[in-house]
Amino acid sequence: MGTAPWKLLLLNALESNSTLKHSSFFQLATIGSNGRPSNRTVVFRGFQENSDKIQINTDCRSRKIDDLKHCPFVEICWYFTDSWEQFRINGKVDVINGSCPDPLKLQQREKAWFASSPKSRLQYLGPNPGFPSLDEKPSQEFSLDQSVGPVDAFCLLVLDPEQVDYLNLKINDRLTFTSKQSTDGQKFWSLERINP
Amino acid sequence: MGTAPWKLLLLNALESNSTLKHSSFFQLATIGSNGRPSNRTVVFRGFQENSDKIQINTDCRSRKIDDLKHCPFVEICWYFTDSWEQFRINGKVDVINGSCPDPLKLQQREKAWFASSPKSRLQYLGPNPGFPSLDEKPSQEFSLDQSVGPVDAFCLLVLDPEQVDYLNLKINDRLTFTSKQSTDGQKFWSLERINP
Repeated sequence: MGTAPWKLLLLNALESNSTLKHSSFFQLATIGSNGRPSNRTVVFRGFQENSDKIQINTDCRSRKIDDLKHCPFVEICWYFTDSWEQFRINGKVDVINGSCPDPLKLQQREKAWFASSPKSRLQYLGPNPGFPSLDEKPSQEFSLDQSVGPVDAFCLLVLDPEQVDYLNLKINDRLTFTSKQSTDGQKFWSLERINP
Repeated sequence: MGTAPWKLLLLNALESNSTLKHSSFFQLATIGSNGRPSNRTVVFRGFQENSDKIQINTDCRSRKIDDLKHCPFVEICWYFTDSWEQFRINGKVDVINGSCPDPLKLQQREKAWFASSPKSRLQYLGPNPGFPSLDEKPSQEFSLDQSVGPVDAFCLLVLDPEQVDYLNLKINDRLTFTSKQSTDGQKFWSLERINP
């Protein structure tokens, strides 16, 4: 399989907005167990090797994990403030925590852990996110041996994109990419130009 | 009713990020009729007069209108790239189009129309957004008398916030604001500090 056509556009947008720290942030929408939409900013942790799957790190105790148990479908909205490009990427998320039975996925989780900064690893030792603050010891005061593997609270999310809506506001162009399966089970992408 | 406490934080964030054009953009999550989340960037069109209700302009023909018919609940995620503050605002949306029977709401829609730039008004004359592009006449070539009121495709969305999750990444502080009704039917807000 060749590189997904929208992935080339996305890599290009990342490149042309690379001076902005926030260009690696996007908004992840899920559906809560109450049936209402939920939306938060998360950090792009790269593509999974040789694929178009998008990686996100999160805390197993965060509400988005409950959301994903209820409904595994998400939509990312990624707006690049310098190049005025928007990517809306939807698909299904695979939640990989420490109790995952697949050794290959556990390996990916470990890799994601070691790829994140020592400072961001410390977050996973802090108190339960979203719970009332009891003025517990702040996570900055925790310490963690840098050779230690992923802690229980660390979770890797892997989004397998199904459809991508690309909008370029500078040239007022909009494209939609839809994944299909070929007869031999391979994923391929069709492309259509749509009205902005 | 006094000003909602989160509104003061939001006005402050808008002020301290005002040099950035994109500080008035946020991501709006809805639930599609297929039961999956949907997420896109929209423009903040101000608060409704003397209230904490948030205004958004949109095209009646856009897919988010179908989403809102199916489920009127949304969550906004608004990340301020300079001050590192995030507001997640959820609540119910009122869709106000030209066939709305309430004269007061029609007046609000008209006001929102005239408050938007002549260039953005022209968008509503363009071809059906999200539909395959047939290389029709681009909307730039349309013209519109500036005294003409809202066209059919123009729609005002009014979000009535129920809960606001505020995160300040610079000082690692997170607050949640929840609206309640007092015994005399007034809306008021409770505040809790939660773990980031």
